[in-house]
Amino acid sequence: MEATTEIAAQVTELSYALDTFYFLVMGALVMWMAAGFTMLEAGLVRAKNTAEILTKNVGLYSIACIMYMLCGYSIMYPGDFAGGIFQSIGTIGSGLLTSSDNAAADVIASGGDTYYSNLSDFFFQVVFVATAMSIVSGAVAERMKLWAFFAFAVVLTGFIYPVQGFWKWGGGFLQEAGFLDFAGSGVVHLCGAAAALAGVLLLGARKGKYGTSGQINAIPGCNLPLATLGTLILWLGWFGFNGGSELKVSDVGEANAVALVFVNTNMAAAGGLVFALLLSRFWFGKADLTMALNGALAGLVAITAEPLTPEPILATVIGAVGGLLVVLSIVGLDKLKIDDPVGAISVHGVVGIWGVLAVCLSNPEAKFGVQLLGIASIFAWVFGVSLVVWFALKKSFGIRVSEEEEYEGVDISECGLEAYPEFTTAE
Amino acid sequence: MEATTEIAAQVTELSYALDTFYFLVMGALVMWMAAGFTMLEAGLVRAKNTAEILTKNVGLYSIACIMYMLCGYSIMYPGDFAGGIFQSIGTIGSGLLTSSDNAAADVIASGGDTYYSNLSDFFFQVVFVATAMSIVSGAVAERMKLWAFFAFAVVLTGFIYPVQGFWKWGGGFLQEAGFLDFAGSGVVHLCGAAAALAGVLLLGARKGKYGTSGQINAIPGCNLPLATLGTLILWLGWFGFNGGSELKVSDVGEANAVALVFVNTNMAAAGGLVFALLLSRFWFGKADLTMALNGALAGLVAITAEPLTPEPILATVIGAVGGLLVVLSIVGLDKLKIDDPVGAISVHGVVGIWGVLAVCLSNPEAKFGVQLLGIASIFAWVFGVSLVVWFALKKSFGIRVSEEEEYEGVDISECGLEAYPEFTTAE
Amino acid sequence: MEATTEIAAQVTELSYALDTFYFLVMGALVMWMAAGFTMLEAGLVRAKNTAEILTKNVGLYSIACIMYMLCGYSIMYPGDFAGGIFQSIGTIGSGLLTSSDNAAADVIASGGDTYYSNLSDFFFQVVFVATAMSIVSGAVAERMKLWAFFAFAVVLTGFIYPVQGFWKWGGGFLQEAGFLDFAGSGVVHLCGAAAALAGVLLLGARKGKYGTSGQINAIPGCNLPLATLGTLILWLGWFGFNGGSELKVSDVGEANAVALVFVNTNMAAAGGLVFALLLSRFWFGKADLTMALNGALAGLVAITAEPLTPEPILATVIGAVGGLLVVLSIVGLDKLKIDDPVGAISVHGVVGIWGVLAVCLSNPEAKFGVQLLGIASIFAWVFGVSLVVWFALKKSFGIRVSEEEEYEGVDISECGLEAYPEFTTAE
Repeated sequence: MEATTEIAAQVTELSYALDTFYFLVMGALVMWMAAGFTMLEAGLVRAKNTAEILTKNVGLYSIACIMYMLCGYSIMYPGDFAGGIFQSIGTIGSGLLTSSDNAAADVIASGGDTYYSNLSDFFFQVVFVATAMSIVSGAVAERMKLWAFFAFAVVLTGFIYPVQGFWKWGGGFLQEAGFLDFAGSGVVHLCGAAAALAGVLLLGARKGKYGTSGQINAIPGCNLPLATLGTLILWLGWFGFNGGSELKVSDVGEANAVALVFVNTNMAAAGGLVFALLLSRFWFGKADLTMALNGALAGLVAITAEPLTPEPILATVIGAVGGLLVVLSIVGLDKLKIDDPVGAISVHGVVGIWGVLAVCLSNPEAKFGVQLLGIASIFAWVFGVSLVVWFALKKSFGIRVSEEEEYEGVDISECGLEAYPEFTTAE
Repeated sequence: MEATTEIAAQVTELSYALDTFYFLVMGALVMWMAAGFTMLEAGLVRAKNTAEILTKNVGLYSIACIMYMLCGYSIMYPGDFAGGIFQSIGTIGSGLLTSSDNAAADVIASGGDTYYSNLSDFFFQVVFVATAMSIVSGAVAERMKLWAFFAFAVVLTGFIYPVQGFWKWGGGFLQEAGFLDFAGSGVVHLCGAAAALAGVLLLGARKGKYGTSGQINAIPGCNLPLATLGTLILWLGWFGFNGGSELKVSDVGEANAVALVFVNTNMAAAGGLVFALLLSRFWFGKADLTMALNGALAGLVAITAEPLTPEPILATVIGAVGGLLVVLSIVGLDKLKIDDPVGAISVHGVVGIWGVLAVCLSNPEAKFGVQLLGIASIFAWVFGVSLVVWFALKKSFGIRVSEEEEYEGVDISECGLEAYPEFTTAE
Repeated sequence: MEATTEIAAQVTELSYALDTFYFLVMGALVMWMAAGFTMLEAGLVRAKNTAEILTKNVGLYSIACIMYMLCGYSIMYPGDFAGGIFQSIGTIGSGLLTSSDNAAADVIASGGDTYYSNLSDFFFQVVFVATAMSIVSGAVAERMKLWAFFAFAVVLTGFIYPVQGFWKWGGGFLQEAGFLDFAGSGVVHLCGAAAALAGVLLLGARKGKYGTSGQINAIPGCNLPLATLGTLILWLGWFGFNGGSELKVSDVGEANAVALVFVNTNMAAAGGLVFALLLSRFWFGKADLTMALNGALAGLVAITAEPLTPEPILATVIGAVGGLLVVLSIVGLDKLKIDDPVGAISVHGVVGIWGVLAVCLSNPEAKFGVQLLGIASIFAWVFGVSLVVWFALKKSFGIRVSEEEEYEGVDISECGLEAYPEFTTAE
């Protein structure tokens, strides 16, 4: 009997090890999404603004990690101190991440209830914060001051994101209301898009984007192979984003669930890409690559709120609708003169909302009203507070570079170097 | 005793979870190969045709996923309906992938015979189909119509590939004859190359490639860092391609097998690169980077049919022979005026055949005649049906862009945008 | 009781499978670092020297794999023949890697002492050798002869690296003295940097780098998106580099350890990036992207010697100090007219030393004197032998291209092709 107990303990430890390892691998894939956003945005801006967007992306990732370690994680997962946002904010003082983790004896005693390392959870969570912030950098590209952006990154990753993350994943009121958002079409993608929209509205459009007589001028991205690479990196990383959000893989049911999430994530991206490409072909007469890429990303955002309950064919359709929506939204925002160089608000915001609502198509536990409540709460909080923060930055340091700097490119003015010193032929 | 039974069930579930997780990680690496082909091809074409080759690559991956979900998977693995190609085609009607997967009770009752999720198998298989189709896009680059290519992709991924895949991996006549092809030097790489060759023959060479007085003009790729990145992505992805084809990792023997596959895959690529580089150095007088890259890929293709039985030193030699062959083949195809801008037919076709035959060097179960039968069957089927499909496309919609479009570059005519609008100086 | 024994054996096998699979995944991430170094270096050199640096990188990786298989692995891990460097060299004759691996019965009998596949260990080790050699290629870029470089790669990966690797990881005198170097700030990074420094001193600076009247001319890298991509690839790969160096994941304590290593690795990189960026902002007045990238890499190198004992906040500080040091060192080496185009000696050498010393900040077992002994031994051996080898190459074949070749770019002279034939506008 003693031998049996010992083996049972060993099996529990091994399960914990597999779940932790799975979590770390999935987290590494999400970290890789930072490279995806970086390449996507670097490909879609002009050459003269490329070094700066690169700097913003690597900088925001680093800031996100540091702020989430210092206070964000404890705001989002206040543990015993939970019960409401104000209490959770109260834990900032004691919010610093430590290396303490589960003791083997406690894991065994828990009988499988404690099934992964706390630090693997932090690692998986912190890369999500960086994802949310990455969405912002694309939308405000080519005209925002570098250090104003970084200041906003400090606030979003250390405070704005964790508070609404707590509402759902930390056990707050949205969780209690039954809001469903598997991997964060709302909590991550809509959050990032709402913050971006607030910034774009206060920042204004790039010079020359909208003509005085109402015409909209295309400003083509300078390096489409990079944009395509970025999209494929994000596609790969999304297997970690959605696949890791199952949180557990170590029995038959969980392993099947992770596999289904992988399949549906992939199918939604494929559906989004194909239908965005078809729509652009029939609407514009050409197979617009940038629309296809945004279509794939839209498919991924759309399936993120619920990749587990749809059949693969429905996942394809949910992605396809995302792909159609993103083309409509990009054209529509341009008509509203909301200048988003990479389409981030459309991909992550408009399609993020679609993703949250699409949960109702396959998950019988979803309540349409509650999904709307989630969307409204996240948007109101993030957009409102972001607007205040961007406004304060605008009034104090300023958020927009000078006209001359914008004309010359922000690479020279902000970074003191060029991204492609030997290649560019002209403005 | 009851406790023992319970633990035994838990261990079976945990094994299933590990094998499923391993399958998904390997599949994610193979999905990543889509980025590898995309970057490789984007680097090896001219700037004016780059956006279109990017569009083809992301489009074909998406089409492959959708078609394989709709009918390809059920044609290739018809299950109880198996017995021959005609029966398997009969299952198309019921071929749609569903989310149904193994019940925990059945897994436990199977005593380890059912050891991974069905959906993880689909995910692993679907990325192989995309790989086969990716081979085609490079060979027909710079002059084929985008939508003709996509139409062919529908047929190859939904029908041509699955039928011959069934012959070997679905339990068809090649499997019964004892044909050995571990991860698909024949089933995947020769298949893609045969379809590409059929397309190239009907399509003809790029304008200016072969002069009227017999000279062969080099058309250099525009972005070799991208081509190199693509090769390294493929190298990484191949660990999933070959490593995952062991299908199981959860005991000592299987874990050792997967490790040996990783080592041999890596050594074959290294051998192929070094010997292609040496041959180009001594033959052409220069260390030709593109030959080195194709040498690495040739090494990978060569070891794919049997990465498990050779010693590491033999794996290096098999790869090295692949590296030498690919240089000879690229030069040879040019003499035959078969214009393959990226060398795909040489890498995947000529070296794919070498890989299938090289099984005989280390696997005592291999029969040379049966390996030849496999090569002949796959080539005849894929080349023949592809020729018919390409011909039908040529006669109906046309498969080649106009001379003027080719001169201006297919980016403008097919996609309506440029890949590098600020960079290109001339051409 | 028999059933219990059988299950116990099954659990031991499953643990072995998980540890082996973990090792292979971590190794694949380290292999991916080859792409990181390749892109980083390709981004930081001039366009005219890009194809050659790409060739060097893919070539050195392949050479490293072949040499380590032939003799390096057996020199570094001589097993029963161990006891000193001379004995270990004696095993070269029998040093060829074979496919023999642990029998299941032996694994079970070992009771968990044998817990991963030998071949997975080789795979993990071989990608480390390639990493060390990758450090050299950047420092000697833009002026060294291709085949002299490859000749040096043969010696470093087959002999110089394995000997000092044996001192620590093979159980040699540094291990016995209590030298601590978790994943190789010294054994890998300082080793690579010392070999690079020897090469740079014999090679001299690039033409035009240092003016006759003492001024230092910046030679900007031609493609900063590639350099950024390379850095992010290295960041991702480093989770394998450090995370895999725990060697085991299959119980609660080990899983927690791997998770902490992931978190600390990530935090150190973030700290290094932010503080290098801040220092460049306040010192130079601009947010220098290349300094930020080197700051991230410095953070990673700094934490590599001990990612397991620091709290995450201390890991951030260790990385931050690395980030500050690298900026100082890059400026300082330029003042000493040591021309290192990519900053490799600063990142891997200066910060590697810092990393080895920083072990004392958190690991109570570290002895400052022994850490110094490790640094001195590794540096003296690698620098000394490298100097001899570089000198012999210089006197025999020559190591530097002609002035004219350097002016025209080594791509044409060494590789016979251009990396960007359509893009570059001028010298």
